[in-house]
Amino acid sequence: MSALLPLPEDIKHLLEEYLPGEKPFLTLTYAQSLDSRVSAGPGLRTVISHEQTKTMTHYIRAHHDAIVVGISTFLADNPSLNCRYNLNKHKIRPVIIDPHFKSSSKLAGSKIVENYTNGTGLKPLIVVSRDVNSSSTEEFDVVHLKCVNGRFPWEIIVKKLHELGLPRIMVEGGAYIINSLLTEPKLVDSLIITIGPVFLGENGVSVSPGQNVTLENIKWWTGIQDSVICATLK
Amino acid sequence: MSALLPLPEDIKHLLEEYLPGEKPFLTLTYAQSLDSRVSAGPGLRTVISHEQTKTMTHYIRAHHDAIVVGISTFLADNPSLNCRYNLNKHKIRPVIIDPHFKSSSKLAGSKIVENYTNGTGLKPLIVVSRDVNSSSTEEFDVVHLKCVNGRFPWEIIVKKLHELGLPRIMVEGGAYIINSLLTEPKLVDSLIITIGPVFLGENGVSVSPGQNVTLENIKWWTGIQDSVICATLK
Repeated sequence: MSALLPLPEDIKHLLEEYLPGEKPFLTLTYAQSLDSRVSAGPGLRTVISHEQTKTMTHYIRAHHDAIVVGISTFLADNPSLNCRYNLNKHKIRPVIIDPHFKSSSKLAGSKIVENYTNGTGLKPLIVVSRDVNSSSTEEFDVVHLKCVNGRFPWEIIVKKLHELGLPRIMVEGGAYIINSLLTEPKLVDSLIITIGPVFLGENGVSVSPGQNVTLENIKWWTGIQDSVICATLK
Repeated sequence: MSALLPLPEDIKHLLEEYLPGEKPFLTLTYAQSLDSRVSAGPGLRTVISHEQTKTMTHYIRAHHDAIVVGISTFLADNPSLNCRYNLNKHKIRPVIIDPHFKSSSKLAGSKIVENYTNGTGLKPLIVVSRDVNSSSTEEFDVVHLKCVNGRFPWEIIVKKLHELGLPRIMVEGGAYIINSLLTEPKLVDSLIITIGPVFLGENGVSVSPGQNVTLENIKWWTGIQDSVICATLK
């Protein structure tokens, strides 16, 4: 595990108003190409952002209690989902949205379970449908929520995470998760997108919400390679 | 026709290395949403960029001899395609890529013909297929090129424009034109994209090339509302 690059002070300052305070908070954040692709294709782990922006992501994680990704991202990336900023002093809880419990056979040996076992991460939480027969183990917890038309309404997920003592929620992907949250202005408190200067092409996995979405409180930051936009949903 | 906003000096300075010098040059430039849409839907004229960035576009036009758009853009937008920077002192020639001469019945009364008639624009040039029976008029010129698989190879268009005394070419859209040029690194000398902080949604007209495209010589600029990336194709 390589060391993180240092984070410029100006982006820390700029991020202040887009990060949680005392109240419950939801941050939606991801990296995309110029052609709004988050990966080169389904199931393909794709590096889009510069190492510097990775540091920013870990810095943002340090301000949250839970980090949420969808099952496709878990299966494609086997992500670490811990917080390496400031020498792992802050712990964040990995949450996988996984209605059909597809992660079942992939959790043993995964990085999130490994991090929990070696003390660099909190116990993973898998959110599955009530119809799925499963229960918590020593390596991960399972919560059951009611699916509506094959997916969990976001307010139900958020409410459950709050009940579990996770008021500051960071959502990182993938495309299906992002697209569904972009049309939830009442739930999303801040949006932080890194744009990498590359085109992944038409076979890439695209982020685009089902309808027009207007932003407010817009600020741009430019790093070594990437541009970052911080905003709120109107 | 409203006055243009003034253009900040820093963007003029930044643009220097992305604009033509003495040699023939091709600049590809357009405005897109965060989700890489250039319009809200087929045939819909959509304003994405800030007035300030519009000034930038006219500034860039002032450095070129021809401005090229596809037939869909002409039909959807009825664009002016002239150069209003510096009080219309520079004249740029509007070129419509129109294999089947769909513009035929729309040219009379169009802004490009109107601008030519009132002296604020050069005579429009319509590029049509050799199979189309048409000829130049007092209001516009027609050139015939050979179509290959229903489209003109870019090198043939560029060669013809050079022959016509138009060495510095600016291509502005729409999506079909942009996507085809993004995979022509030998023809494109510079790429300038304005990103407006909005999502136009999945029904919008998307820009994404047929394959992965890597960029070089990348510089970002942030305006009042938009971010601009300048680059070259690798």
